[in-house]
Amino acid sequence: MSNPEIEAKLAPLRAAALEQGNLVRELKVKGAPEIDVKRAVAELKARKKILEDRELELTPSVVTFDRSKMEDLLKRRFFYDQSFAIYGGITGQYDFGPMGCALKSNILSLWRQFFVLEEQMLEVDCSILTPEPVLKASGHVDRFADLMVKDVKTGECFRLDHLIKNALEKLSKEKTATQEVKAECEDIVIKLDGMNKQEMSDVLAKYSIKSPLTGNDLTEPIEFNLMFATQIGPTGLVKGFLRPETAQGIFVNFKRLLEFNQGKLPFAVAQIGNSFRNEISPRSGLIRVREFTMAEIEHFCDPSHKNHPKFESIADTRLTLYSACNQMDGKSAQQISIGEAVRNNLVANETLGYYMTRIHQFLMAIGIKPECLRFRQHMNNEMAHYACDCWDAECLTSYGWVECVGCADRSAYDLGQHTQATGVKLVAEKRLPEPKTIEIAEIVPNKQTLGKTFKKDAKSITDALSKLSLSDVNEVEQNLKDKEEYVLSLQNGSEFKLTPDTISVKHSTKTVHVEEITPSVIEPSFGIGRIMYALLEQNFQCREGDEQRCYFTLPSVVAPLKCSILPLSNNTEFNPFIRQLSLALTKAELSHKVDDSSGSIGRRYARTDEIAIPFGITIDFDTLKEPHSVTLRDRDSLKQVRIGINEVTEVVKDLCTGKVHWSQVIEKYPVFEQQEATK
Amino acid sequence: MSNPEIEAKLAPLRAAALEQGNLVRELKVKGAPEIDVKRAVAELKARKKILEDRELELTPSVVTFDRSKMEDLLKRRFFYDQSFAIYGGITGQYDFGPMGCALKSNILSLWRQFFVLEEQMLEVDCSILTPEPVLKASGHVDRFADLMVKDVKTGECFRLDHLIKNALEKLSKEKTATQEVKAECEDIVIKLDGMNKQEMSDVLAKYSIKSPLTGNDLTEPIEFNLMFATQIGPTGLVKGFLRPETAQGIFVNFKRLLEFNQGKLPFAVAQIGNSFRNEISPRSGLIRVREFTMAEIEHFCDPSHKNHPKFESIADTRLTLYSACNQMDGKSAQQISIGEAVRNNLVANETLGYYMTRIHQFLMAIGIKPECLRFRQHMNNEMAHYACDCWDAECLTSYGWVECVGCADRSAYDLGQHTQATGVKLVAEKRLPEPKTIEIAEIVPNKQTLGKTFKKDAKSITDALSKLSLSDVNEVEQNLKDKEEYVLSLQNGSEFKLTPDTISVKHSTKTVHVEEITPSVIEPSFGIGRIMYALLEQNFQCREGDEQRCYFTLPSVVAPLKCSILPLSNNTEFNPFIRQLSLALTKAELSHKVDDSSGSIGRRYARTDEIAIPFGITIDFDTLKEPHSVTLRDRDSLKQVRIGINEVTEVVKDLCTGKVHWSQVIEKYPVFEQQEATK
Repeated sequence: MSNPEIEAKLAPLRAAALEQGNLVRELKVKGAPEIDVKRAVAELKARKKILEDRELELTPSVVTFDRSKMEDLLKRRFFYDQSFAIYGGITGQYDFGPMGCALKSNILSLWRQFFVLEEQMLEVDCSILTPEPVLKASGHVDRFADLMVKDVKTGECFRLDHLIKNALEKLSKEKTATQEVKAECEDIVIKLDGMNKQEMSDVLAKYSIKSPLTGNDLTEPIEFNLMFATQIGPTGLVKGFLRPETAQGIFVNFKRLLEFNQGKLPFAVAQIGNSFRNEISPRSGLIRVREFTMAEIEHFCDPSHKNHPKFESIADTRLTLYSACNQMDGKSAQQISIGEAVRNNLVANETLGYYMTRIHQFLMAIGIKPECLRFRQHMNNEMAHYACDCWDAECLTSYGWVECVGCADRSAYDLGQHTQATGVKLVAEKRLPEPKTIEIAEIVPNKQTLGKTFKKDAKSITDALSKLSLSDVNEVEQNLKDKEEYVLSLQNGSEFKLTPDTISVKHSTKTVHVEEITPSVIEPSFGIGRIMYALLEQNFQCREGDEQRCYFTLPSVVAPLKCSILPLSNNTEFNPFIRQLSLALTKAELSHKVDDSSGSIGRRYARTDEIAIPFGITIDFDTLKEPHSVTLRDRDSLKQVRIGINEVTEVVKDLCTGKVHWSQVIEKYPVFEQQEATK
Repeated sequence: MSNPEIEAKLAPLRAAALEQGNLVRELKVKGAPEIDVKRAVAELKARKKILEDRELELTPSVVTFDRSKMEDLLKRRFFYDQSFAIYGGITGQYDFGPMGCALKSNILSLWRQFFVLEEQMLEVDCSILTPEPVLKASGHVDRFADLMVKDVKTGECFRLDHLIKNALEKLSKEKTATQEVKAECEDIVIKLDGMNKQEMSDVLAKYSIKSPLTGNDLTEPIEFNLMFATQIGPTGLVKGFLRPETAQGIFVNFKRLLEFNQGKLPFAVAQIGNSFRNEISPRSGLIRVREFTMAEIEHFCDPSHKNHPKFESIADTRLTLYSACNQMDGKSAQQISIGEAVRNNLVANETLGYYMTRIHQFLMAIGIKPECLRFRQHMNNEMAHYACDCWDAECLTSYGWVECVGCADRSAYDLGQHTQATGVKLVAEKRLPEPKTIEIAEIVPNKQTLGKTFKKDAKSITDALSKLSLSDVNEVEQNLKDKEEYVLSLQNGSEFKLTPDTISVKHSTKTVHVEEITPSVIEPSFGIGRIMYALLEQNFQCREGDEQRCYFTLPSVVAPLKCSILPLSNNTEFNPFIRQLSLALTKAELSHKVDDSSGSIGRRYARTDEIAIPFGITIDFDTLKEPHSVTLRDRDSLKQVRIGINEVTEVVKDLCTGKVHWSQVIEKYPVFEQQEATK
């Protein structure tokens, strides 16, 4: 990943991170106050950030990449662009044009093949509009929020952490700033990530921070929930949200899905669909948007049995892992086989490791570069409180390392939350290795005396008694024995004194063959827009010696169009061959584009390169002769071969499905050097 | 379509419709008052409805279909079910389970192949969240509404037309109802469709209609907009809606798309995505829902050139057309070739006819029955004011004929609306047959005197003058000539008196090679959920002699899974063959399901039939012998053949891609009669 020269430059930064990582560990071992740990972690993150930024600066590919040039091309050839631009546009929303849409659709199609087909997953398609109670249970209503402040006069909104950071950085750069102020500002910026609402509010007050645009006063911090709210139905009473993730649709259908799988664990459910987050100030193009496509998998398994039947088949795959430990030590990511990683407990279990490997394989298949992909483990303090282990597949872009796929072991959290909220048990039955005899104690009401004593309340008393747990029943029994009475409190507040003549306790045993378990969930979650962006960036190239001729080296499996058909000129004799080829390609399900516009063949090749078409068929004057032949051009090598018109479709099909490689084609067919523009 | 016995029963109803149809025509010819025409049309619709209901009653397939039995199966095997059921559910929202999702995904995949690939369309993927001005321009903010009333005490909402209809029908059935009251009620119900808010409000008052649930008073009618509203961004100031159709995303991107197509017409743009309508009281399962997937095409063409290059290739296809004329005559739909229909001007143009034929072909390919599909033309009074011609592909279901695909010539309406709203010209350039000389008149300001006279206003005056149209300029010229002055009014209300010494008019000519035209739009719009529902209903069957064994005859191209693998028993010797077959099917991209659960082979076949698996591979004791072979079963014929294990995957692949037909398989391989359950 690195060379000695670069490593020498990074050494002091690595040492600084290690020093701080050790401090964090020490504080944790000592049981230091939480605030001290938090402060130390914030400092560790800051040092990691400096290290990482410097590492990136020294990475050659990032240095040469020209983002604005690529963005210009993406816009010009309508891969994607801002939505509703003729109406002034909306930030954080993008429309995918023909090339972006085809790329996305090809990625998703491969995803389905890779995961749904190969792993025999159950794919579902759930509602986007979600009623409030579902998202209350999942925690989104209460916790899915960012802090913001508003300009009291204009109503302009600012994300609070960004605002404070910018204000303090500006302040510490002022000429009048003392060393003391500078240090204080730096300290606050480092600690911002862990601050709560009150602490941030205090910072606002202390430094009299105003609106950076108008200088007006700002409101107190407001928790702004990032979900889009609406009303379902005409009454205005049913509050709903656009889902912020697709996962909840799977969890609430758990029972139906388990039944579909004939009650057996493990099984995995997949879903592709749109989710929505009302970002306060979206930016960074496709990376932070308000509407986005996700592809999520929820793998349900026995919490005590997280190994995977296919793990052995992938155990030797080497991944780049950036463990929490390495992050604390200021070390780089390391290459390691997933088998070893699981054996060493670096990755929590086989199933998690299996999915990480499949994510790696998938990203490689669509064209992510191996040196620009790493799995970063969440550090303890980053992890959601319910997760056991979490690794993000991060892709390197000019924005730095960007999380593109999350892969988390979420334990039984989600199913537990929905069970609690609805009273519907979201559990699976697990066959016991051998039948088990369990003790049962139940309360037997003496119906006659109970009815006489409590009249119309007898029924609710009997009902309440039947719902008591084993330990409750034991308590009743003890009470009856010790005090000859037990006072039963009902939910409505009424109390009843029960005596041995109204109830008794009966003990028995029962043989059970199954136990109920709440499955664990392993969740790989793909952000399709982010993956697309990273993919485009990593595949953006310019021809050597001609910086204006840019192209994308997208693999043919995901390239928006597979092939171009270019008649050398507008000679009408070419037309029957264009039609013949287009028909044959359509029949072979190969998307293609005929470019019969005027313009030199070179210029038209360049235009097809811009939209990543991997193969080009040219009809020239030799095509008119028998046996009819065409030339086939490879986008990446720029090499061409001459090939029979009846053969070319199958060759392109084989190239696109990976059956043959270009190097084989160039060996088999005569190389072609240069088209002549005229007869 | 019908037999003489049935026709005899329908004859009087047809006559009644014809009589009324003629009356409508007569009134229109006479130029009768609009209210009379409306009343006559309402009566015509009522008679058509009676005719159609009777026709359906006499159709055998509808008689035998048991909807609740099918719905039970769809729910039990989780094709789809109500969303968020464990939270009590939301009406009008459905989650697709593994089988529904796979069916949907296969339909969409074939749709892409049929339209995007074969017709070389530009597919796009646009935002769902749409800012208000876009939907203001499209007309949805003002007009996309239903009338409703609320219970003043409970807030319960009722769709007004449904409420009045039910109330009056109930009233006219009461014993005390006089003949007069009955006639009056009937008259109102017939006219309901054309009534406005005030008229309906008067009916409410006249009959003192109350809430049917509580007897409480009702509010005045309220126009309830069917779009879901939300706020985009944190300020709460940017109002947005969830799109009610996908089409607008295409229209607002017209310029980019035209450019992508190198400025040339015609071209077609496709989009698959979700849309949302906040129905007041959704019902009828998948047919009327709040969230649904559409697949829409916008074909942009020269308004004076709506023929289609591929029309000849499909001109002989016979479609079932139910023309507006036949509807008014009380006649049935008729079978006619689309070539003839366009020649006779029954269908407005070739492009519309071409798409209708492709819609027909697509629906046949996925398994809609030819006798259960018709194209119904909108009658004049049904058509949106901007449409030239509109045909709905309707599928026959137990709910009657249901609109599943609309196919409309929308003329230049949408592009015109967005041009007007944004000032961005959404036009194409059309090459003139020969260059044209056009006259230009422009106003030349005398900058010196203008500046002197009007000082700082001179610039806005010059700007305003430059924007005048040719006819405006002519008016200025006339004024200067006649009155030696022209009074210019600016948008801000200020007026300026211009005289010949401040401005003059200059005439010149220009040669132009192109003219700007606003393209016409032909729009086929597919409701995927409705198509799925009709498809499931039309393919629902029960085995002869066993009403409990139900199955779906879905064609293999859309069937959720292509193949099952069934080991005859849980003998472990079968396991390597299960693995071998599963691997081979996966490699051939054939989705499949292994059912190694206990249960007789017959019972397991029945389970795979329920989820429409077309082919079943059974591993039995003969499989263990060399050469290894399996049996292959056809769902629809229940026939089986014995076939080599290495051959079977390719045979299934060929069956699923339509390369071979089952009848060929049964000829080639030995027929197999009955598996034995034990060795």
